[in-house]
Amino acid sequence: MADQWQESFDHAVAVARKAGEVIRDALQNNVKIMTKSSSVDLVTQTDQMVEKIIISSVKEKFPSHSFIGEESVAAGQPCVFTDNPTWIVDPVDGTTNFVHGFPFVAVSIGFAVNKELEFGVVYSCLEDKMYTGRKGKGAFCDGERLQVSDVTEIRKTMIISELGSNRDKETVTKIFSTMQKILCIPVHGLRGSGTAATNMCLVASGAVEAFFEIGIHCWDVAAGAVIVTEAGGVLMDVDGGPFDLMSRRMVSANNKTIADRLVKEIDIFPAERDDAPREKK
Amino acid sequence: MADQWQESFDHAVAVARKAGEVIRDALQNNVKIMTKSSSVDLVTQTDQMVEKIIISSVKEKFPSHSFIGEESVAAGQPCVFTDNPTWIVDPVDGTTNFVHGFPFVAVSIGFAVNKELEFGVVYSCLEDKMYTGRKGKGAFCDGERLQVSDVTEIRKTMIISELGSNRDKETVTKIFSTMQKILCIPVHGLRGSGTAATNMCLVASGAVEAFFEIGIHCWDVAAGAVIVTEAGGVLMDVDGGPFDLMSRRMVSANNKTIADRLVKEIDIFPAERDDAPREKK
Repeated sequence: MADQWQESFDHAVAVARKAGEVIRDALQNNVKIMTKSSSVDLVTQTDQMVEKIIISSVKEKFPSHSFIGEESVAAGQPCVFTDNPTWIVDPVDGTTNFVHGFPFVAVSIGFAVNKELEFGVVYSCLEDKMYTGRKGKGAFCDGERLQVSDVTEIRKTMIISELGSNRDKETVTKIFSTMQKILCIPVHGLRGSGTAATNMCLVASGAVEAFFEIGIHCWDVAAGAVIVTEAGGVLMDVDGGPFDLMSRRMVSANNKTIADRLVKEIDIFPAERDDAPREKK
Repeated sequence: MADQWQESFDHAVAVARKAGEVIRDALQNNVKIMTKSSSVDLVTQTDQMVEKIIISSVKEKFPSHSFIGEESVAAGQPCVFTDNPTWIVDPVDGTTNFVHGFPFVAVSIGFAVNKELEFGVVYSCLEDKMYTGRKGKGAFCDGERLQVSDVTEIRKTMIISELGSNRDKETVTKIFSTMQKILCIPVHGLRGSGTAATNMCLVASGAVEAFFEIGIHCWDVAAGAVIVTEAGGVLMDVDGGPFDLMSRRMVSANNKTIADRLVKEIDIFPAERDDAPREKK
């Protein structure tokens, strides 16, 4: 059944490109900003509009499929991961970058069946780079095969992560403590692009050896997870256990040696699971 | 004397583009890495070769001009800033990015007369973006006029900085402490591209409101300084005093309000001036 999800994959690539065009156009106009959980957790009308474009287009073509979308969940829809073919969508990964015109903004579309990721599409729309990964078929950027870095010495790595939108003092202190410990291993450097999806594509491309973050959501990393593993990389939990898409934490790295080494330095803080039952309002 | 330095400016743009091509070609091959001050202060044969290309090409055309180049200084040449027309060159700003293939690598050429910066050229060669600024004539990216962001509320800013290549514990602790304080003002976010020259172009473009760093060198920021000010931005020292090209510290921001606010949070640590007398070996 090699091509069972070919049609879905082709549709994902087409709709991601279309969504990216809408995002690029929106940047030409004034972006109206709203906030979600805090004054630095931003959302725009573009996020909401682009998610509607993606979901309605997929629904029309694949009416039986399910969806988990960042803005739908923010609007109160449940985040339930079933065995049904499921599209996991972040319409604008890097909303803060989008608001500022910082050059990394991605459309991220992951697709899972029986809770297993089948493919991922990340369109870095300001760079105009289309990243794709399909289970068992490799990862690509604009048709060019991706391969993770072959570095195995932690001191020769570059690591990418994010500070996130949490400004709680205890959490921020743990984030900075982790970064400082990793920087002083020492590694060559730390970077942050402002989007988890792009960060994972940079791991897949070999431009950095690893990305880690606590606080990400399934829609930030579902697509990137396929792209990293298909480029030869590994995923794990920040405690060294197996990666769990709903756990809101991940290490993705070029190999297990680097991932295992990073895990030793990560100060873990709590993040409620994406699939935690939510109180009815 | 509006066009007195036109020929020098045109030559700077041409040689920056040529240098960028050499850098892009070099990325296709295996990059041989050496180190300078520490195991994370990297230099490659490309840095040295590209600086030679730039300096020899300028010397041929303008034999009376002076030079301050990163690799020439590293090789023992004095870093003396005189009134003579002076080219201040970083052949590969973002060497660690270059080594890893991370997408921000810049050729930076500043030009000063009577110790005043006349023009700056930053070629972000992996993005293929040519940034220029000329005193009194504005700043441009690929012909499009640049304008800094008009944000005046610190809580609505995105700030860019770098962790640098110093791994001394006390210094690193101050760097992270500063970043944590700024993040928790709170600001929208912190970013780091891995090159000071590109960071300053992002300030000039309005994608971030400010860049600050202690430990940068004159060749990292000479070109960007013109580009930021000609895009309407400001430069100052990290202690709030006037910017000094040789001091190895700077804040560049979209306006004085934002720069003044950032200065309050910056923990200063010592960095020996670029023009400090050096012991003869």
